Parts: sequence; C-alpha cells; structure tokens
Amino acid sequence: MQLVIVRHGESEWNKENLFTGWADVDLSELGKDEAYNGGRALKDAGYDFDICYTSYLKRAIHTLNLVLDALDRDWLPVEKTWRLNERHYGALQGLNKAETAEKYGDDQVKIWRRSYDVRPPALEPGDERDAHTQPAYRDVPAEDIPYAECLEDTVARVWPWFQEVVEPQMKAGKRVLIAAHGNSLRALYMKFKGLTPAEILEVNIPTAIPMVLTFDKDFNLISDEYVGDPDMIAAKIDAVANQGKAKK
Amino acid sequence: MQLVIVRHGESEWNKENLFTGWADVDLSELGKDEAYNGGRALKDAGYDFDICYTSYLKRAIHTLNLVLDALDRDWLPVEKTWRLNERHYGALQGLNKAETAEKYGDDQVKIWRRSYDVRPPALEPGDERDAHTQPAYRDVPAEDIPYAECLEDTVARVWPWFQEVVEPQMKAGKRVLIAAHGNSLRALYMKFKGLTPAEILEVNIPTAIPMVLTFDKDFNLISDEYVGDPDMIAAKIDAVANQGKAKK
Repeated sequence: MQLVIVRHGESEWNKENLFTGWADVDLSELGKDEAYNGGRALKDAGYDFDICYTSYLKRAIHTLNLVLDALDRDWLPVEKTWRLNERHYGALQGLNKAETAEKYGDDQVKIWRRSYDVRPPALEPGDERDAHTQPAYRDVPAEDIPYAECLEDTVARVWPWFQEVVEPQMKAGKRVLIAAHGNSLRALYMKFKGLTPAEILEVNIPTAIPMVLTFDKDFNLISDEYVGDPDMIAAKIDAVANQGKAKK
Repeated sequence: MQLVIVRHGESEWNKENLFTGWADVDLSELGKDEAYNGGRALKDAGYDFDICYTSYLKRAIHTLNLVLDALDRDWLPVEKTWRLNERHYGALQGLNKAETAEKYGDDQVKIWRRSYDVRPPALEPGDERDAHTQPAYRDVPAEDIPYAECLEDTVARVWPWFQEVVEPQMKAGKRVLIAAHGNSLRALYMKFKGLTPAEILEVNIPTAIPMVLTFDKDFNLISDEYVGDPDMIAAKIDAVANQGKAKK
C-alpha cells in the first residue's frame, strides 16, 4: 500500500517569517512554482492516484490543485478536512518568528515551535483570529476548534481521522495523495514511524517535495523516500530547520 | 431554494474557435480572468454556498477553483462528475468551427451545434480522442461513455444525475454552486424552465457569468437572473450566438 504526502509550497507568511497556523494565507509565487514542480516530479516518476485529501487552508488546497494540474489529474476526487490543518499557533499567529526569537530567545521559540506538549499562548475568544467565528469552521463542533495547539494536540485530531477515513481507502487499494502542512504531516509521520516526541522534533519536512510511504498489509511502514533531486531536498530540509532562529 | 450555475471562462480552443466537447482543454488567460471576475460578482452580491459540483474537464474545474478563490471559499466541498461534462462532439472535436462551417455550410454546423436530436459524426473506437481509453473515465461504465452526443443525449445523462444528487441537497437547505459547460448547463436550464427543443436552441449561456435560479418548495422555477453588469452580459450572449458562423 502506498501513500504520498506533500507539504504546501512557500506561503506569503513563510516568506515574511511569520507564525501562520490556521491563518489562511495564500502561496507565494515561489510556492506556486514549488507546488507545480512537486507535481511534475510525481508525474515524471510515474505516480498516479485515486483519491486526494487536503486541509481547509488555501495554501494546501492550492498546492494540491497545482500538483493535480501538473499530473493532468484535475478530475481526481478531493476531500477537504480541517483535521489536516496546520498546528494552531494560538496568539503567536501573525507574529514575526525572528522578532519573537529576539524577544523570548531562540530556546523559547524552539519550544513553542517544536515541543510535543507545550502549547503556545492561546487566542482570546473573540480575537479576530479565532476560528470559531470564521465561515470555514461553521460546521465544525465548537469544542473541536482549538485556541492554541501543541503537536500532541495536532496528533490527537489528525491520527484518528487518518485511521477512520484514509486507512480503509488504502486497504481497499486506493492510491492516496495528501497535501497538508508541516505539523499535520509530522503528526502522521510520527505515527507511521513510531517515533518518540524527542525524535519527531528533529524531523523537518521540506515544502512541496512529495514523500512516498510504502506499507505492508498490516500497515507497517516499509519505506519512506522523497521524490525529486536529492541536493535540493537536503537544502530544503536545512532551510526549514533554520527558520525559527533569530536573524543575525 | 437557490442554485447558482456558471459556465467556464474562455478556453484555449474557444479562442481558436475549435469544437471542444470532451477534449480536456485549459482556460485561456482571458478565461481565467473571466472566472475570477464571476466569483467577484458573486462575492460583491453577498452569495455564499455549502457545496459545489463540476465536471471532469479542467476548464470547468479551474473556473470553479477561481470562483472559490474570489469568494474566499476554497475550503468548500467540491464533487466532480463526468455527467456535467460538455456535450460530446464526436469526430468534430478539434476541428475549426469556421472551417467546418465553410465546408458543410452554416446550416449544417448550426444543426450539429444546436439541434436537439441530431448527433454529430461519431468517433471511431480507438481514436485517440476516445474517452474509453482516457484515465479520467476509468471508473465510468464503458456503456455510459459516448462516441458523440446530441443535446438530447446530454440531457439524458445530466438530468437524472441532478435529480438524484443535487435536488436532495437543495431540499436539505444546501446552497449549491455548479460550474460546468454550455450544453450541460443548457440541459439543466431546459428542464428547469420546461422549454421545448426549439426554445432551448435559442438560449445562449454566456461564459463565466453566474446565473442565480430560485425555486419554490415544489421545485418550480420562480426566477432566473444573471449576476453582473447587464451590458457585459448582453454582449457575451451575442458573442456565443455568433460563434458557429463562418468568418466573413
């Protein structure tokens, strides 16, 4: 059984080094090119799919649209779910990462970005960034909508969804493509690999490089590998790892 | 109950005046602008939706994507179905309309384009344009895939789908948006209005101008009107009506 996951291309806020979370920011022009090229890499390697999943956030949806366009598979079914959204960054959403690092220190920012069970400061209810008042979440039970999440929270909403919705499709022989976010994909990858919280902190998923995951019939991960040029992949992983550090 | 239908923006082949049918041609740059502007018109008029439908053809899918982007509703659920595809133009697909009109005469082309029950010449099985061999139709029963269609054939595949899939959604209070093609939308419009074959021949649906249809609880059409600038709408309807005539 095979699954391909892809993180969205660079967003306007990645470019400006802002904490994004559930803020619905679009891809940058570079991000659109990255997404299309990710699709081309899949096409060149001969991949095809039966069903696709993405989040409620346009940077992931547009990434999927561009990948499907590059694959000439615009007609594939797509399901969107808030459960694949990025980790909710609470009151940090919209703040500059480098400035936040200067103010609180690299270590605190690294804890907020990368700790498994420490939540960033929560949004106040009624804050204009609160998803409870946004149309996209009008059909989501209010108690499921977070004000801030640590990675553990993200795992707790992504993994049961994956097991309930995606696993049956894969077991029925469907080839699945998921376009989502750094932390919702990290939540899945942690579970696939059986990683500890400490181990997942060191995993950096690069933007718009498709990762192919192969499972045996008992859903044990056999292999995981990126599709694309190895040097470019290494450079992108390095860039993600350095994103939270203060500018020199 | 309210339904909005929108025909895709100008495609690369509309621009070149070629018969398109099921050929999977993308939007032109003008078509992309038209589609986005159609979405803006809906947004400016305050429309919102719960579920969207489109065809398997990228010019309709991309139109819907651009309308949703303009509406800031990228996250809405979208179902794609071959039943909303354009009328299948058989062996005419890829031929130039003006040249075909010069060769066969304006009247024959008008019959092929606009008659209710006269099919254009059929594709030969195995023709590279035959949808039976194309990946998009791999899950469609072979006997449902046409080699050529008259409008009557298109109505026969669109209308039962609408009654089975869309009507229950509307009766459940869902606001529905459909992005499709000149003839699949004409098939719906004929049924909504109770038009005769002769009457539907005179109806020209302009590209990327959303049409709002309002129904009573018994699904009788109460009103239908376009959203946008009236002069632009009239000019677009005129342009569609003149498309099949030989160039002077």
